[in-house]
Amino acid sequence: MEELISRANILIEALPYIKAFYGKTVVVKYGGAAMTDADLKEKVMQDLVLMKYVGMKPVIVHGGGPEITRVMEKMGKKVEFVKGRRVTDQETMEITEMVLVGKVNQEIVAAINWHGGQAVGLSGKDGGLLTARKHNEPDVDLGFVGEICKVAPEVIDILDQEKFIPVIAPIGVDAAGQTYNNNADDVAAAIAIALKADKLILMTDVPGIMKDPKDETTLLSALQITEIEELISKNVIQGGMLPKVRACEKALNQGVNKTHIINGCVAHALLLEIFTDQGIGTEMVKASA
Amino acid sequence: MEELISRANILIEALPYIKAFYGKTVVVKYGGAAMTDADLKEKVMQDLVLMKYVGMKPVIVHGGGPEITRVMEKMGKKVEFVKGRRVTDQETMEITEMVLVGKVNQEIVAAINWHGGQAVGLSGKDGGLLTARKHNEPDVDLGFVGEICKVAPEVIDILDQEKFIPVIAPIGVDAAGQTYNNNADDVAAAIAIALKADKLILMTDVPGIMKDPKDETTLLSALQITEIEELISKNVIQGGMLPKVRACEKALNQGVNKTHIINGCVAHALLLEIFTDQGIGTEMVKASA
Amino acid sequence: MEELISRANILIEALPYIKAFYGKTVVVKYGGAAMTDADLKEKVMQDLVLMKYVGMKPVIVHGGGPEITRVMEKMGKKVEFVKGRRVTDQETMEITEMVLVGKVNQEIVAAINWHGGQAVGLSGKDGGLLTARKHNEPDVDLGFVGEICKVAPEVIDILDQEKFIPVIAPIGVDAAGQTYNNNADDVAAAIAIALKADKLILMTDVPGIMKDPKDETTLLSALQITEIEELISKNVIQGGMLPKVRACEKALNQGVNKTHIINGCVAHALLLEIFTDQGIGTEMVKASA
Amino acid sequence: MEELISRANILIEALPYIKAFYGKTVVVKYGGAAMTDADLKEKVMQDLVLMKYVGMKPVIVHGGGPEITRVMEKMGKKVEFVKGRRVTDQETMEITEMVLVGKVNQEIVAAINWHGGQAVGLSGKDGGLLTARKHNEPDVDLGFVGEICKVAPEVIDILDQEKFIPVIAPIGVDAAGQTYNNNADDVAAAIAIALKADKLILMTDVPGIMKDPKDETTLLSALQITEIEELISKNVIQGGMLPKVRACEKALNQGVNKTHIINGCVAHALLLEIFTDQGIGTEMVKASA
Amino acid sequence: MEELISRANILIEALPYIKAFYGKTVVVKYGGAAMTDADLKEKVMQDLVLMKYVGMKPVIVHGGGPEITRVMEKMGKKVEFVKGRRVTDQETMEITEMVLVGKVNQEIVAAINWHGGQAVGLSGKDGGLLTARKHNEPDVDLGFVGEICKVAPEVIDILDQEKFIPVIAPIGVDAAGQTYNNNADDVAAAIAIALKADKLILMTDVPGIMKDPKDETTLLSALQITEIEELISKNVIQGGMLPKVRACEKALNQGVNKTHIINGCVAHALLLEIFTDQGIGTEMVKASA
Amino acid sequence: MEELISRANILIEALPYIKAFYGKTVVVKYGGAAMTDADLKEKVMQDLVLMKYVGMKPVIVHGGGPEITRVMEKMGKKVEFVKGRRVTDQETMEITEMVLVGKVNQEIVAAINWHGGQAVGLSGKDGGLLTARKHNEPDVDLGFVGEICKVAPEVIDILDQEKFIPVIAPIGVDAAGQTYNNNADDVAAAIAIALKADKLILMTDVPGIMKDPKDETTLLSALQITEIEELISKNVIQGGMLPKVRACEKALNQGVNKTHIINGCVAHALLLEIFTDQGIGTEMVKASA
Repeated sequence: MEELISRANILIEALPYIKAFYGKTVVVKYGGAAMTDADLKEKVMQDLVLMKYVGMKPVIVHGGGPEITRVMEKMGKKVEFVKGRRVTDQETMEITEMVLVGKVNQEIVAAINWHGGQAVGLSGKDGGLLTARKHNEPDVDLGFVGEICKVAPEVIDILDQEKFIPVIAPIGVDAAGQTYNNNADDVAAAIAIALKADKLILMTDVPGIMKDPKDETTLLSALQITEIEELISKNVIQGGMLPKVRACEKALNQGVNKTHIINGCVAHALLLEIFTDQGIGTEMVKASA
Repeated sequence: MEELISRANILIEALPYIKAFYGKTVVVKYGGAAMTDADLKEKVMQDLVLMKYVGMKPVIVHGGGPEITRVMEKMGKKVEFVKGRRVTDQETMEITEMVLVGKVNQEIVAAINWHGGQAVGLSGKDGGLLTARKHNEPDVDLGFVGEICKVAPEVIDILDQEKFIPVIAPIGVDAAGQTYNNNADDVAAAIAIALKADKLILMTDVPGIMKDPKDETTLLSALQITEIEELISKNVIQGGMLPKVRACEKALNQGVNKTHIINGCVAHALLLEIFTDQGIGTEMVKASA
Repeated sequence: MEELISRANILIEALPYIKAFYGKTVVVKYGGAAMTDADLKEKVMQDLVLMKYVGMKPVIVHGGGPEITRVMEKMGKKVEFVKGRRVTDQETMEITEMVLVGKVNQEIVAAINWHGGQAVGLSGKDGGLLTARKHNEPDVDLGFVGEICKVAPEVIDILDQEKFIPVIAPIGVDAAGQTYNNNADDVAAAIAIALKADKLILMTDVPGIMKDPKDETTLLSALQITEIEELISKNVIQGGMLPKVRACEKALNQGVNKTHIINGCVAHALLLEIFTDQGIGTEMVKASA
Repeated sequence: MEELISRANILIEALPYIKAFYGKTVVVKYGGAAMTDADLKEKVMQDLVLMKYVGMKPVIVHGGGPEITRVMEKMGKKVEFVKGRRVTDQETMEITEMVLVGKVNQEIVAAINWHGGQAVGLSGKDGGLLTARKHNEPDVDLGFVGEICKVAPEVIDILDQEKFIPVIAPIGVDAAGQTYNNNADDVAAAIAIALKADKLILMTDVPGIMKDPKDETTLLSALQITEIEELISKNVIQGGMLPKVRACEKALNQGVNKTHIINGCVAHALLLEIFTDQGIGTEMVKASA
Repeated sequence: MEELISRANILIEALPYIKAFYGKTVVVKYGGAAMTDADLKEKVMQDLVLMKYVGMKPVIVHGGGPEITRVMEKMGKKVEFVKGRRVTDQETMEITEMVLVGKVNQEIVAAINWHGGQAVGLSGKDGGLLTARKHNEPDVDLGFVGEICKVAPEVIDILDQEKFIPVIAPIGVDAAGQTYNNNADDVAAAIAIALKADKLILMTDVPGIMKDPKDETTLLSALQITEIEELISKNVIQGGMLPKVRACEKALNQGVNKTHIINGCVAHALLLEIFTDQGIGTEMVKASA
Repeated sequence: MEELISRANILIEALPYIKAFYGKTVVVKYGGAAMTDADLKEKVMQDLVLMKYVGMKPVIVHGGGPEITRVMEKMGKKVEFVKGRRVTDQETMEITEMVLVGKVNQEIVAAINWHGGQAVGLSGKDGGLLTARKHNEPDVDLGFVGEICKVAPEVIDILDQEKFIPVIAPIGVDAAGQTYNNNADDVAAAIAIALKADKLILMTDVPGIMKDPKDETTLLSALQITEIEELISKNVIQGGMLPKVRACEKALNQGVNKTHIINGCVAHALLLEIFTDQGIGTEMVKASA
């Protein structure tokens, strides 16, 4: 009985967070270890279903790089990266779309359904969700790597208002019908802006922004966007973290309330970020109230 | 972090119950020690607010005998009980209504609001909710002690569909305008029937129906209504428990899915009954599936 | 037949008023002789039910001072007034709430229902309707006498849109959970403002504002708020009338279209004020059109 | 003041009737003296507007024989009646439609609007409202005199649910596109059936069904349809009254609650029939409760 | 089969136009040869029904001069025109209303229904649709010739949102209850403005605005309103075309997107104007994009 | 102009069909040559978009066998068929899902969008749409070849009610989470039943059911299900046509109104079947009316 009551107390302690996020839209970029590790993956799915049931509107955007590489290799297609981005010729684009939409996306959908949710997979083509254009990188042609120029969120809206959880592959299409692969962090930010989301959460494989990347105790729990430039100039924000911070900055500047960069290697990282005061990663806001 | 993750796990373990009761109406008879003990009371309020936020529609019916007696004594009015029921002359009726509607009900409303809910107090007069008639007890005239003959649940319905939690004082009125005091267990059962509730929960000060009332290990966790008569004939169900069991039986026979008699002396008894498999009291169903 | 036709003509003469007030919200402060005299009371109830049926949205706010005093005396509690306001210690506050919410309010609800309406009683605690704070009176501590600082009218709105007539006891609560008794005229004005009401009607025991209080023929039938200060300086508006005029002034300045101070001692005063051109009391507007 | 209060009392006495008919559909066949006498006409219009404002759904069906005759004569067209029905060749039909829809109907619409209502004129062609077929009279060909075989009430429904009062000319059309003139009493009955109306009221120029047509004191105030055949056999119901009684009988047999044959020569006959207990004409029901 | 496929191709070629006009309101002034020629009339009716079925909201406004003259003559009433407008005394007004509302309007309604639509006829009196005032012509009193000063489009709106096609006779009424006959082009423009229509189409008996009225190859297919004054000064726009162009100009200046003056003598002129790129008449816009 | 008018006439001739299918659900199994031939494919897309715009609710189910084989071969995976069905081990199932959902489905979605529609791709996993179980074939284990045992059509419904066109890959999942590949004809039939569709259309590469498969003039244009068994016994229905006919039979027996087996090699086959009286393939009904 003692143990039961202590469990009840934990539920009750979640109540203020449940109230605070009731009816709020939370866009989650799902990727990294939380996607490849079976245990972590299961816990993310549980978190998403719980979020839906206690009244939030979770929207998932996923990547899927390793799986694309695996299939490309199997099909005898050479894999090439420049500046951390996959060089994407037409055949690579087709494989990418096939893997992201037909495999990675559907695995997430099935996993959410397995845990009692009702997920619906979408690519940026469905309902004209994502219009993209070629991403121009100086000095190099990455091929069909795109960037989002328009979001038509109606199809997400009608799913969100019902019991469904939208799961989105970061595929976009331009006015001429050409398909592009897009960075999932950027897609998540663009969708969060279009949905006027309350939160954008980017799952990574590190604890967040750390002053000393080797020392987790130097984690910056909270940040205002005015502090970003200095942290970049001091190389605290660098490498793969830089575009994530830029995506967050853009979302905050265009109406998203808060952004979070969290460690997907921690079990239930989503719930911990949402249901505890200090959270577990780096929270960014436009300016402190 | 360990502790945080274990908390997250407890939330996740609640998910199957949250799913099972999503959108369901749960009528709770609130009374006894859970109403007089400040700590227990606070936990009931938390439980009700949590139930509302995770998608249930809790409806509270309360008694308030001790407070009525206290005010009657203060006003120099003699208090008399016959067969466990208060003899209720016109003046007693007026004091009873004033205390139940103006004091006990409003304290519950305020307490729910204090914990973040949005309660609305109702008596059986509000919106014509409860039509009563005189309760005829053989050999004795109890005065204005009533029994419910009609429930008009529209006012509850429109509150339930919004963010509001209805809190109901068991006052009824007959066609001639006479006010009656009614047994709160019976009122809860009548309202559960009218609302086609999924659950009726009666809070008491004992663990449930026990084969040996002095030995809590003899608690009957589950019961079908076909077993009731034998338990009565064996005096397992007797005294104050008898009318509660009859109220449950009536509710089950008129469409309520399950009834529960639980121990309000246990902290978070409501959550424990709803969010654990075995529950903590005596669950009754019409017939095992 | 002649008499029947003349009755029909009277109905028809009401038509322009029915049209004019169709769908309009009318907040009525109910009190004084119209509440204590059984005949007058019955006629007010009839008026309110008729108003609802011909398409208006009447909202009733009531006082109940005499009844509070009566119960306090019965409970052996000393009654004390300073500057016309009841000194309200904690025990007095409890009795006040119990009497207003559990007795006076419920009597009005029952009376409206008796005449064919569907009233729902509310206190300022229900649905978080009225947030109050301590009223600070220079040189004296009146205890838990409050003033309204916030109105959350959703619970009134959802009742208004249905067949229900809201009846409101002027009890408020502050952020710390302390209960306050509030002046019913002020509560009516605050609610009229929050509801963007078309009319605020204050029932009193005098014909309205009179140049010579002893001569009813000096009644001021219409007034603009620009004329108030001069009337105060000339002592035409004074004593108990002054706070009523201030409540009207505030309502007019914050969007209520018209306010009326009428004589509740006249049978059907409400209908007469609404359904006749000249009305029977003092009508105030912001400025003449 | 005395007189004002007595007016208020009359409004209040109307309340039980207002409640009883709230939301109810009342189909009125308008014709006879109430249509030709300017004073009576004005009072009918007032009655209809009042009915709409106090929550009823009045639907008007009108005739217009005298006006048709007047225009026919003006256009040099011979007027011929057989068995009380106008012989209707194609040209007569065209004039009939033109007069009923373009003149009589629009005058009623304008008159209702003038009194503050919002009428919309309809013929049986509008929205496919009335499908008719040739009325076969033994031994004589009346031409394009029709009878209603189908009512498509959607267009009335969507007006009724809004602020509009439908006013209907008894023109119908068959599947081949031929227009027919139909008896307005029959059209009113057919529409009352299709709308599941609560009341069908036929305005005539006599007080109702009288045992002795010359003695108004022999008026039959109430009748069950089981009594009709005997009254016909005794020639109490005869002549022009017979088809009206048959129309009422049909309506009652197909779900209309009550029918009324009233004297349109009495000012405010509609209100008097609806707002007084005994009414002023002959009320028919299927069977006494 | 070849022929079938070519038919399918034609349907497919209509698709871009169907998409472009989906949900758009198109007000059509119907008159001239398209109204008197049976074949042309039938094709207009088909066009209107098709427009409704592929998602447009057509609204028809009609004239009816020739029919008015015919009936007037039949009734022995002298017909007189001044400056192209009918001198309208009270009797002429009555005949005009009777013919427009009771004959012309109902024939259009019947014809649309015959082709599978669901038309509802309206005059400017129905639902208070058109408020008019006397049209003052210098030097001459035309009698009850009016001009529109207010449109209350609610009755059109509720029909438009359902399956119904509104057909409107250009009759208006002033505040004093006087009926006026109004120019149908002007009425169509006023209604297009009130409905925020996408298109106003005026059907005439000429191909559109032609530089040389005798040479159809000089048709101006497109025009901006800035070009109007010069075309008038050069007498390209003159005579009966002038008020039509002014009606279009007014509509464009008050929010209508495009106006069209088309030749009703061409079969399916409406479809051709809407479903082909160049159209068949003169299209006017406010300014080229 | 002549040509334009003849085009308009063709649109008008489509009107009766547009009316007949307004608001009706039409499930189309899309496959075969119409999917591999670029010209035919484009015309199917146009047909689907037109169907949506003229008020139908088209739902597309597609196969994709050839593309699966192509990718399997590219990935060095052996392709094996038994009794016309692909032997599907776990790796084949993964490739199948990836190709159907991530490539074939998205190509159709993109093509519909390109032609102005708003398609949304779904697999049977999305929203729990298709529950499958292992298909048991006597004497052979085909692996993860499934058959549909439950359809949850809510996700289709909410897309259908909006502007979206659902495009469905025939992937299902069982209660244990195992994915199955299902016959697209069977999936189309199951969905048509669940949606209570008006029509089920199966696109094939032959003209329909022919008495002599080598002679197109022996095409059976219409068939009742009572005639099926005899045609099977006579080998008129055999081979690949047999399961298609069984799918149609099942659909007709469970409430679908009509089924059609049509030749996808004909341009605009869909429009021709729907918009012409005789159609182009074999129409089946339960019984002739």
